[in-house]
Amino acid sequence: MTSNEALCDIGFIGLGVMGKNLVLNLADNGYRIACFDLDKDKIDAIIAQDREEHGQGTPRVVPCRSYTELLSKLKAPHLIILSVPAGEPVDHVCHLLIDAGINADDIVVDTGNSLWTDSVEREANYKGKFIFFSTAVSGGEVGARFGPSLMPSGDPYAWTRIEPVMQAIAAKVDPQTGLPIESHVPGKPVTEGEPCATYIGPVGSGHYVKMVHNGIEYADMQLICEAYQIMRDGLAMSPADIAATFRRWNDGKLNSYLMEISAEVLEQTDAQTGKPLVDVILDKAGQKGTGLWTAVSALQVGSPAQTIAQAVFARSISSLKSERVKAATLLTGPAKQAVSDSEREDAINQLEDALYCSKICAYAQGFQLMAMASKEQGWSLDFAEIAKIWRAGCIIRAVFLQSITQAYENDDKLENLLLDPFFARQIAQLQQHWRQAIARATMLGIPCAAMSSALNYYDSYRADVLPASLLQGQRDYFGAHTYERVDQPAGKKFHTEWSQPGRPEVKIKR
Amino acid sequence: MTSNEALCDIGFIGLGVMGKNLVLNLADNGYRIACFDLDKDKIDAIIAQDREEHGQGTPRVVPCRSYTELLSKLKAPHLIILSVPAGEPVDHVCHLLIDAGINADDIVVDTGNSLWTDSVEREANYKGKFIFFSTAVSGGEVGARFGPSLMPSGDPYAWTRIEPVMQAIAAKVDPQTGLPIESHVPGKPVTEGEPCATYIGPVGSGHYVKMVHNGIEYADMQLICEAYQIMRDGLAMSPADIAATFRRWNDGKLNSYLMEISAEVLEQTDAQTGKPLVDVILDKAGQKGTGLWTAVSALQVGSPAQTIAQAVFARSISSLKSERVKAATLLTGPAKQAVSDSEREDAINQLEDALYCSKICAYAQGFQLMAMASKEQGWSLDFAEIAKIWRAGCIIRAVFLQSITQAYENDDKLENLLLDPFFARQIAQLQQHWRQAIARATMLGIPCAAMSSALNYYDSYRADVLPASLLQGQRDYFGAHTYERVDQPAGKKFHTEWSQPGRPEVKIKR
Repeated sequence: MTSNEALCDIGFIGLGVMGKNLVLNLADNGYRIACFDLDKDKIDAIIAQDREEHGQGTPRVVPCRSYTELLSKLKAPHLIILSVPAGEPVDHVCHLLIDAGINADDIVVDTGNSLWTDSVEREANYKGKFIFFSTAVSGGEVGARFGPSLMPSGDPYAWTRIEPVMQAIAAKVDPQTGLPIESHVPGKPVTEGEPCATYIGPVGSGHYVKMVHNGIEYADMQLICEAYQIMRDGLAMSPADIAATFRRWNDGKLNSYLMEISAEVLEQTDAQTGKPLVDVILDKAGQKGTGLWTAVSALQVGSPAQTIAQAVFARSISSLKSERVKAATLLTGPAKQAVSDSEREDAINQLEDALYCSKICAYAQGFQLMAMASKEQGWSLDFAEIAKIWRAGCIIRAVFLQSITQAYENDDKLENLLLDPFFARQIAQLQQHWRQAIARATMLGIPCAAMSSALNYYDSYRADVLPASLLQGQRDYFGAHTYERVDQPAGKKFHTEWSQPGRPEVKIKR
Repeated sequence: MTSNEALCDIGFIGLGVMGKNLVLNLADNGYRIACFDLDKDKIDAIIAQDREEHGQGTPRVVPCRSYTELLSKLKAPHLIILSVPAGEPVDHVCHLLIDAGINADDIVVDTGNSLWTDSVEREANYKGKFIFFSTAVSGGEVGARFGPSLMPSGDPYAWTRIEPVMQAIAAKVDPQTGLPIESHVPGKPVTEGEPCATYIGPVGSGHYVKMVHNGIEYADMQLICEAYQIMRDGLAMSPADIAATFRRWNDGKLNSYLMEISAEVLEQTDAQTGKPLVDVILDKAGQKGTGLWTAVSALQVGSPAQTIAQAVFARSISSLKSERVKAATLLTGPAKQAVSDSEREDAINQLEDALYCSKICAYAQGFQLMAMASKEQGWSLDFAEIAKIWRAGCIIRAVFLQSITQAYENDDKLENLLLDPFFARQIAQLQQHWRQAIARATMLGIPCAAMSSALNYYDSYRADVLPASLLQGQRDYFGAHTYERVDQPAGKKFHTEWSQPGRPEVKIKR
């Protein structure tokens, strides 16, 4: 038997890339963690790394060979964090914890990329067995290690117990500048600044917000990729030239983690061939599902997150590599055109503004989707708080999340980010370049699906009269679906007798 | 007791707009139908209409007051057709039929807009009670009355019994020209030509194909609406001018039912105000879900049906009318530009080709989606047959479905419609206009989201190297998701150590 002093603060199950780094992050912050993984090598590895990073004294990471042992080594009530693959494995572990004797007031925190509706079901299913709490994590492996962005949701009482732990390990932001405060030195966590962990709402809402974060991330990445392709194929620029351009953009309004790592990827040389690595990587994009879930939710909620959906489809079409290679020989496009240095410079400047405006629209779509889902689910999401915790730690962290924070702090009922005076002004000033960049790619035959969909979102959203009047006429014509009138109260339905059965009407003719 | 001679051929449940017209169509073709509806007025109405249309002799429509009575009036084994709202009502009726004593070898045909997975579940759930068969119907009310396009799927034995009925009531096509043969005279059905009813495959596949038909329909309608908006807002054309243009287009390669009714809608004058009706119809598009289902399925299957998804999002954004009216006052766009007659003429010609090329892409996406779903589900769909039954009766019927039929008859393994020599050549010839029309709308600030997404589909599909190489680099950088190499076998995964935890790396800076 160990004395209570020697008991661990937290139990941790699952030592994959994310789990291992979260444990080391917890250890940096002084917590003692009882760890379990099916793979003993992973347990051995983390113990060795704990010793190396935190010294040979009292180990902060304590290995466990079973769930029963894990529970026995924890302070009561138990706090257990899961980092296991989303889906069935989460329930598998939950059932094993029940078998091992977990208590009704113990808390289990799921940190995987779970589907938000699964979290809702789990809270209900495990009621009375333990408290199921969901905390979505963004930031990849480095974020997990030195400070991720955390989106916790569930039982508010459980949150009061989890809060200090989450705030300790979360990324930190300088409240004055909105910029991240980072330290990547093991054992020396950042202890100042605003933590990127805020209570999101009822269970599931945190994973929903994280899902939308990933949807925005898909759009952000695809937009950068389109800028890259336009420079590569339309402006005859090398990976090094494009990397230098991205670095320059990263010093301005496009400053972001994704812009920075894009430059780093383009600068990387392949050790085997000596070529730029990007030219050696196969252009088939993988996906794990969160972008797809966001697009599906947008369709279901009726929120026009078209740039996010477009980014998902771009990954699908990229994966049809062998078809594309064949199609490239059969389908024609415009002839390549030489470009002068001054034309290239103009085109690059247009592209920078196009990328920025498109990015604003992608974020506007993400926040609009969250707003519509929040209304539907009764979550009362706080968008200033959400923008705040995305300023550091997560993949989409960027200077301009400070502007989004300010937009929602100025007006917490803001219907759309595009209507915020700052963003409205930015697009007013830059839209001519945005349009030119897209028109240019269109004429050159270079795809820019996400950028185009963003501009179309903007132009549709600011259209007081869309052509849906004709569409409603079509629907009423063939399906008697009725329509409303501009001069009658909303909800009042009208139908026109477009054609009488019996009269020989619509015919197809040559 | 009635003698067997007096028994009805078919039982029919649900006399809404579609149901009533299907019953009259069956009656035109000489069948005797026992009808049930909860609403007695609907039963009275159809009996009156039967008398009026088919004379005072032996009535073809026989009213029933209960499910038991309906079964008692049918020849055995019973054939019962349902036209009730999709979802729970279908199961409700099925359970009432079981209570009323339906037999295991009786057939129940669901003709509603059911979700295809529901049909799959129903066949399994009702096994042993009766044979559940699904037949999707397209054509709206007029199609139902005088010949719809039918997409039956389910038990092949049941199909042999249903086939003559379905082929009798289906739309007919002249096999030489591929054009519809139509008669809109009650009691005088078309008896020559190829019927637009072919066995699609195992249960659910017919409703899946119908779902994709509707997805294509959404795209088709949206593309026409975008052409309308570009003429209205970019070329200062009146509804009458636009209708005349649509009529002209309808005599050429764009000939289709939707083009024809769009002209009719634009020609309609509002009786109350004397204005063109289209200017009085509120521009908020409704939707019943099948387009949304298609887009969701495309995302899930990984098929880039982006123009279909874009059409769904266009309806969503149209429904945000009050936000749009507000946004129109706050968000700026390019200044309106005067247009000369010759510029207008050029722009109209470009637009015709843009609409046609976009339409080809929307159909290519729909067929690609069906191909991917067919592979996933093991349906072995026959695309020439599917194109054939869409040549008449259904909403998307168009001259160019004959070209699609020929494409798949020439090559039943065609990977993508774009790769068919006829369509490839069409786009090769017309793409310059397609690009010009989109670039023009882009510069003018007129949304053309579906057209743009179609062009981007084309340009992405024919790109042998997409920028997904950079995207895979980004994913490997932040999430260790690995990548494949162009010079190594497919499936072999590589990972680059982009940054070492411990080294002070990626920082956000001003």
